[in-house]
Amino acid sequence: MILLFLLSGNSKAQNIVNKEPKATWIWYPGDYEIWLANRMQNRRTDRGTFFPIFWKMDSHYPLMEFQKAFYLENPEKIQIAVEGQYNVKLDGKLAEGSPTEMNIGKGSHILSIKVFNQANVPSIFVKGKTIVSDSSWLLTFEDKEWIDASGKVSDKSGTVYMKADYWNFDTPTELPSQFHLPTKPAYAKSREEKNHSLLLDFGKETFGFLKLCGLKGSGKVNIYYGESKEEALSADSCETLDRLSIHSNTKLDSVMKLSKAFRYVNIRWDKNLSLDSANMLYEYSNVKQRGSFRCSDTLINKIWNVAAYTLHLNTREFFIDGIKRDRWIWSGDAYQSYLMNYYLFFDSPTVERTIFALRGKDPVTSHINTIMDYTFYWFLSIHDFYQYTGNKRIIEQLYPRMKTLMDFCLSRRDKNGFMEGLPGDWIFIDWADGLSKKGAVSFEQLLFCRSLETMANCAKLLNDAVDAEMYSQLAATLKQKIFSVYWSPKYHALVHSAIDGQPTDVVNKYANMFALFFGYLSPQEKQDVKKYVLLNNKIPKITTPYMQFYELESLCDLGEQKYVLQQIKDYWGGMLKLGATTFWEQYDPTQKGAAIYSMYARPFGKSLCHAWGASPIYLLGKYYLGIKPIAPGYSKYLIQPSLGGLKWMEGTVPTPKGQIYLYCNETEMKVDASDGEGVLEFTSKKKPICQEGKIISKGNNNYEMEIVKGVNYKVFYQSR
Amino acid sequence: MILLFLLSGNSKAQNIVNKEPKATWIWYPGDYEIWLANRMQNRRTDRGTFFPIFWKMDSHYPLMEFQKAFYLENPEKIQIAVEGQYNVKLDGKLAEGSPTEMNIGKGSHILSIKVFNQANVPSIFVKGKTIVSDSSWLLTFEDKEWIDASGKVSDKSGTVYMKADYWNFDTPTELPSQFHLPTKPAYAKSREEKNHSLLLDFGKETFGFLKLCGLKGSGKVNIYYGESKEEALSADSCETLDRLSIHSNTKLDSVMKLSKAFRYVNIRWDKNLSLDSANMLYEYSNVKQRGSFRCSDTLINKIWNVAAYTLHLNTREFFIDGIKRDRWIWSGDAYQSYLMNYYLFFDSPTVERTIFALRGKDPVTSHINTIMDYTFYWFLSIHDFYQYTGNKRIIEQLYPRMKTLMDFCLSRRDKNGFMEGLPGDWIFIDWADGLSKKGAVSFEQLLFCRSLETMANCAKLLNDAVDAEMYSQLAATLKQKIFSVYWSPKYHALVHSAIDGQPTDVVNKYANMFALFFGYLSPQEKQDVKKYVLLNNKIPKITTPYMQFYELESLCDLGEQKYVLQQIKDYWGGMLKLGATTFWEQYDPTQKGAAIYSMYARPFGKSLCHAWGASPIYLLGKYYLGIKPIAPGYSKYLIQPSLGGLKWMEGTVPTPKGQIYLYCNETEMKVDASDGEGVLEFTSKKKPICQEGKIISKGNNNYEMEIVKGVNYKVFYQSR
Repeated sequence: MILLFLLSGNSKAQNIVNKEPKATWIWYPGDYEIWLANRMQNRRTDRGTFFPIFWKMDSHYPLMEFQKAFYLENPEKIQIAVEGQYNVKLDGKLAEGSPTEMNIGKGSHILSIKVFNQANVPSIFVKGKTIVSDSSWLLTFEDKEWIDASGKVSDKSGTVYMKADYWNFDTPTELPSQFHLPTKPAYAKSREEKNHSLLLDFGKETFGFLKLCGLKGSGKVNIYYGESKEEALSADSCETLDRLSIHSNTKLDSVMKLSKAFRYVNIRWDKNLSLDSANMLYEYSNVKQRGSFRCSDTLINKIWNVAAYTLHLNTREFFIDGIKRDRWIWSGDAYQSYLMNYYLFFDSPTVERTIFALRGKDPVTSHINTIMDYTFYWFLSIHDFYQYTGNKRIIEQLYPRMKTLMDFCLSRRDKNGFMEGLPGDWIFIDWADGLSKKGAVSFEQLLFCRSLETMANCAKLLNDAVDAEMYSQLAATLKQKIFSVYWSPKYHALVHSAIDGQPTDVVNKYANMFALFFGYLSPQEKQDVKKYVLLNNKIPKITTPYMQFYELESLCDLGEQKYVLQQIKDYWGGMLKLGATTFWEQYDPTQKGAAIYSMYARPFGKSLCHAWGASPIYLLGKYYLGIKPIAPGYSKYLIQPSLGGLKWMEGTVPTPKGQIYLYCNETEMKVDASDGEGVLEFTSKKKPICQEGKIISKGNNNYEMEIVKGVNYKVFYQSR
Repeated sequence: MILLFLLSGNSKAQNIVNKEPKATWIWYPGDYEIWLANRMQNRRTDRGTFFPIFWKMDSHYPLMEFQKAFYLENPEKIQIAVEGQYNVKLDGKLAEGSPTEMNIGKGSHILSIKVFNQANVPSIFVKGKTIVSDSSWLLTFEDKEWIDASGKVSDKSGTVYMKADYWNFDTPTELPSQFHLPTKPAYAKSREEKNHSLLLDFGKETFGFLKLCGLKGSGKVNIYYGESKEEALSADSCETLDRLSIHSNTKLDSVMKLSKAFRYVNIRWDKNLSLDSANMLYEYSNVKQRGSFRCSDTLINKIWNVAAYTLHLNTREFFIDGIKRDRWIWSGDAYQSYLMNYYLFFDSPTVERTIFALRGKDPVTSHINTIMDYTFYWFLSIHDFYQYTGNKRIIEQLYPRMKTLMDFCLSRRDKNGFMEGLPGDWIFIDWADGLSKKGAVSFEQLLFCRSLETMANCAKLLNDAVDAEMYSQLAATLKQKIFSVYWSPKYHALVHSAIDGQPTDVVNKYANMFALFFGYLSPQEKQDVKKYVLLNNKIPKITTPYMQFYELESLCDLGEQKYVLQQIKDYWGGMLKLGATTFWEQYDPTQKGAAIYSMYARPFGKSLCHAWGASPIYLLGKYYLGIKPIAPGYSKYLIQPSLGGLKWMEGTVPTPKGQIYLYCNETEMKVDASDGEGVLEFTSKKKPICQEGKIISKGNNNYEMEIVKGVNYKVFYQSR
């Protein structure tokens, strides 16, 4: 396999080091991500009580060897910083102690640094004129370099080296273990003060550390947080709280240890205490908002902005589900955040970190997050990542762990080759009443099939023809089986499940919409699914933004942008009407009053700032602006604008090295791209004109035009 | 499998808790052992430089659920101490915060405590009147207890619970993470002081922290440690050293941070410094010496005592190879320490800890210590442990990890079913010049076969008939194959190896002596091996005490106690003549002068206090006193005294609950056992007499007598 770098301990590689290289802290692939995820996910509390995840938490390797072979034209001095106990070996010779700098002579060398760190991740920072710690270093958790009684080193190495992983810790003092998100002070928009109590309203959903100022006296302070005013006022039922004991004769300020999600804060203190004021430290990820969208519909604009804020709040060390709860990394939730991110921040490191953290380590003892569908979304996310970013490194780094996770799946197939829920497997699909999880659920098989296709694609990318062929075969066989078992001519659709190989009579949207945008349906089946399932009022409605994501995506795929636009206005607009300042975990338009906040049998169980609520960002970017990569990393891309009933729209979609701008109304389009080779596809009732480019007619009112980067295009046409 | 305890999260077990139970700190099986081994093994230094192991270092699970189901007759209050961040759930309901005590009402309950600890091992201590943390608690690293949108808990659990592991931390303040071995002050026997230098001689090999007293001034102190005087005086080549920088106007004492092995210490300091004196803190494991041996030969008595001291020094947090180096846990070395331990300390916890630490965690990526033979010794050690201690718990706890390690082995067989050294595999066998490791080595196949038999035995013990049958079959097939390929009628022995299935012409002792005491040889083959291999001067001599262990064991098995006694006196006595105060890693009687200290191409590379040098303890206990268990935990045992040329001998062999005492001269024997059911077997030229027991004649001068515990037997007989 090309991703495993074998290096004999004695060989002298002759790598010429680049000029002016950048040094950065490096570590074993995934180790820092796993460690940071452990730290972050353990910050969830339930009414003051530690509330950790319920699946396996992995650890970094506590002992690590870092190695670099290089050739020096001139002697140089290197600086060495390490997180952990360490030694340094140059050309097999141990330096005394743990040197922080070293002189290296001209010629070929192998430098290796071995680090132990149980509590934090073994990581190093090396900086010389040409020798720097970067992704070219090779790492192993078992170098297997024994010596025999004569002092001779082992010569038949079986050691597997991986390339180093890194983020943006680019100076020796920025220790990875000390990382925390930035904060800035923020203040309430309004306050209601009573005897020994203070109710703050920050005007919109926010996140951070509450700060109490000028506390004095003796007694207890109880702080109740609320995403709604009702929640903050419910001392008995609010989901998060803090309790302090204060004993101070002089005024002091107190910043809470754990960040919380809230719009309202209800602070109550004992009568022997006094408090001057309270504010907060807003905690955020400093990802840049690179995507934009504006259009003729002010409600859509508001929805886009609130969605962007919702996604930003949930974009932290990792993509999390919700900021109040669970504050965990859920693969199915994160999968949607990745896709939205490609149209908003295009922050690849957050995607990479999340993918690594979700996968954890071998052995695989459970589905990701215990959920079968979430295992499959994880596979899909890797292929998407490559398509959007063009960065193959994560596939190289993760392929061994992709294989072992797929082995886990393959080992759990039933006699029909399907994956049913075994004890300990959560078949999630969606929050929906009465959804059966029994037998072999068609939705899961579709995702399984897509995952196998992803494995085949990744194997091909890594030039592993044997694996590619094996996974392709498995996928093809499974797809054939899925349609032979689940496709119902009677219902013109895939049925929901099969018990003992026999299809049930239940039809719902899940499997059908995925089959549709996976491209698994024939044109006739597509039209059948549209008519008999997606636009059929007798089929159960989807009530979570989570599955709305895919439902609306499949309708967009069918060209129903106009219908979808109205859906977005109704559904997301419905939340805004109820005062939402961020989008919710679930929204049922039929619910009224305080019931809208309840979930999981708890009055304020529902998260009011949930990443999966932000899908309009993705839909508007991909299916209205219509911009998407068709070759890895936007090296080739497509623009298929669709106003969907809007008078005009304009927006920017970020790409790895730049952006693609589009303005579009019913008669004019402007395109300006700084990256890749694009094709603009559109229909026009009259012959379109563009001075800057050559428009080719495809017949039947269809046209296309090549987009060259750096050119400002103006296209005059007639959309209807 | 009976060792995996499945418990539904909702079930209410009705366990009646014992009266007056003992609380102790508990953790997940192996996790503390792995963590402690990481800490201990990283204390090795090479001339002041950190020198870690070269195989994979595993970690504890950072997140752990502890669970106990019980029934309370009366309400009680429990005290809770935890290492880590935690929550407490009673009957599924979370208590607020992290309570340190809790009142529990009458009735059935499930108490669970969930703990996160990245740096140290999640562990708990719970103490109530009847509810205590002990080995009956169930633990899991993934409870998989999700809830659905209605708040309902998952009902189809696939969670695997293991029983808790523990040691002897029996009070809430004895935190497992704070454990360290005890120390006591010790002083040099002699000292040579010169200008700014001091050479201390502690009279014999010792271990601990050097302490410098009354340091004052400014400058450097260099401390060179030596197991020999030559080593301490060799500033350039001694294996361990410390360097200090002192800047102090007042006198101060300084204790070295890392313990060292030494007899001599050479302290040199700058002229602007002064030093009053130096002594040490002797660091030791407080295992009790329960076995004893004394006989008519003073050299043998001295050898036994020096061996006991050697083993004690190498018995620490774990059984290590040597106290100077490597200070690591090596499976082949530890395997011998276990066997010696059964005749000296009978300290089961040290054996258990070492076995757990060696195994580490899944996935298996290498042989134990990277050495194929060492993987096999690990399997063998588990069966021995059960035989000597009668404690089946370790098999229950480790069986899943035994299986995955054996899967690793089985997956690496060649087309003949043999295990050859693949890249990264170290075929160790012994330190011996010119020993070929090519092809399929017969010695490794014998150990492999014995390991498969061990798997079959353990599976039987756990009532896993399917596994037992599978492993028995694999072992039988392999044994047949070994003899068909390696047994040479020409050499009357097993040959050393086979290349491409063809046996080589090399004969040495290794495979043959193991085949012998494994009981794999027919009576004729046994005699052949004795004559043509073991007592054949043309066969290469064994020069390590390591393999002498097995050579002398196989000769004792053949009844050659007299010959072996002389070997012990020559070989171990030879080391004593050279001034040894503990036994060495290697001893070649032909070496003279300083050469005796060199190894690994380093002048003082050889360890002069090596656990595998202590084998006389085992040989004298098992083959002279002749005491060994024949049913698990000495429930049944055999005494077959063999003077081997001694006039008299007496000794004590420890058992799980007591001891077996034997005195024996040529005409009289005394036996006194406090445990188990024994049989005394002996030969006598005349009819023996014993008032306390009934002697049965087996014919041909052979007799046996049943030994009942608590009776003082006196047997009068005639040994020749």
